[in-house]
Amino acid sequence: MRQESHGPIGVFDSGVGGLTVLKALMERLPHESTLYLGDTARVPYGTKSGEVVTRYALKNASFLLERGIKLLVVACNTASAVALPALSAALRVPVVGVIAPGARAALRRTRGGGVGVIGTPGTIRSGAYQRELEVAAGSGGVRVKTRACPLFVPLAEEGWLAGEVPRLVAREYLEDFSRTGVDTLVLGCTHYPLLKEIIAEVVGPRVSLVDSAEATAEAVEELLSARGVLAPEGREPTHAWFVTDVPERFMEVGARFLGRPIPTAEQVDLSF
Amino acid sequence: MRQESHGPIGVFDSGVGGLTVLKALMERLPHESTLYLGDTARVPYGTKSGEVVTRYALKNASFLLERGIKLLVVACNTASAVALPALSAALRVPVVGVIAPGARAALRRTRGGGVGVIGTPGTIRSGAYQRELEVAAGSGGVRVKTRACPLFVPLAEEGWLAGEVPRLVAREYLEDFSRTGVDTLVLGCTHYPLLKEIIAEVVGPRVSLVDSAEATAEAVEELLSARGVLAPEGREPTHAWFVTDVPERFMEVGARFLGRPIPTAEQVDLSF
Repeated sequence: MRQESHGPIGVFDSGVGGLTVLKALMERLPHESTLYLGDTARVPYGTKSGEVVTRYALKNASFLLERGIKLLVVACNTASAVALPALSAALRVPVVGVIAPGARAALRRTRGGGVGVIGTPGTIRSGAYQRELEVAAGSGGVRVKTRACPLFVPLAEEGWLAGEVPRLVAREYLEDFSRTGVDTLVLGCTHYPLLKEIIAEVVGPRVSLVDSAEATAEAVEELLSARGVLAPEGREPTHAWFVTDVPERFMEVGARFLGRPIPTAEQVDLSF
Repeated sequence: MRQESHGPIGVFDSGVGGLTVLKALMERLPHESTLYLGDTARVPYGTKSGEVVTRYALKNASFLLERGIKLLVVACNTASAVALPALSAALRVPVVGVIAPGARAALRRTRGGGVGVIGTPGTIRSGAYQRELEVAAGSGGVRVKTRACPLFVPLAEEGWLAGEVPRLVAREYLEDFSRTGVDTLVLGCTHYPLLKEIIAEVVGPRVSLVDSAEATAEAVEELLSARGVLAPEGREPTHAWFVTDVPERFMEVGARFLGRPIPTAEQVDLSF
């Protein structure tokens, strides 16, 4: 057990989006070391098939596993939606996705039982949020309305976060959410928190937004604590970042997502 | 020679965009057989580094080469911009990119010598159009103004081709082109012809748009003819499509780009 509590937490995403989850983890669990992998050579996952995303997810996971992680966080909604069963079956460490924690957070938040979910085409097509919400709500019941918003990822990556273009795009995708009894909206893609202000403006003040990063960090803490492998307090944690394309843009754009500078990121080749 | 004239023309792109080039080839050279590869598992190339795009381009090329192509068309501006030297060095068949034909077409078209180029971040960052235009113009001289338009690819892929959103995005990117003495604008990405109407509206009637698909087909014809390996007239050509992700979306979106249905596309794995 002692050795296990010293391993880092592994986190992967298709690119920079998962850094919002890493940020929540670093804030909630400041003694834990982390390894982050951004698969920037194959980004985005959200427009690709479940089959291809699962293949990439397994490669990412085995890269992190070789580096001694004690737990894997799939910090990408699309990969969580389609690859979690394959990852859990293949790995000898616990695997935490972002969808179950996000769904549970939405059910705690909703007053009227109307929950909206927005995400990439891959996430929405998978039906993973719908299933997770219905299972977790049980006999209490939940009405779920989902919508794929494919242009939000490029807008967030390009830093077009305010002004007429993102406002019009958000209106096109979200206008009818405020008319359908949805009082809680899950930001089912790690890029979307960057567009939070515009999204909130379009859906109106009666709709509460759920960002699954916080909820995921909470789930990780519970799991490590239950297994007795939380890092000892007072330990100086280490953090490392890996990417599959050249690191410059990841470090630059990623700092916006992480809320602090990324000191260095090492390029690795996972194509073989 | 006889055998060579029976091989198909190989064409690759990161996804569906290169189908605009294939369309021009099929119209200009109706007796030629073709093999098209869309690397949909790793699309897009335009936001990735030259290093990674070159690695992917070499894999795509060797897949097509194994199937007996007599000539390779790199129907992707980003790959043409960064990987053409590596491809030409590695392959035993002639390689034609879209940039040199597009640049030469622009020089024939311009009246005042002011040429604009729009493309992906990868294409623009490479400086390939600028170099090609300056070399081809020689002492005649040319003034080049370039601009990366990263949101045009997701807009075209999502089919948001008309209306307020693409108009606003185009204005943001292109407004100053009409004020800088540019009279000819190269659509330096195979996705952009789908947004031609909006682009034309924003840059105004005095700016002529150049789509390199036609010019590339012409270059291919010249090259095959000079080598004496044009397909014999009256031959019934065959056409085949390959993709690296599941074929459904490629066939659906691709028909818009090709201007006719894609009867079938075979999924192949190039990740090893």
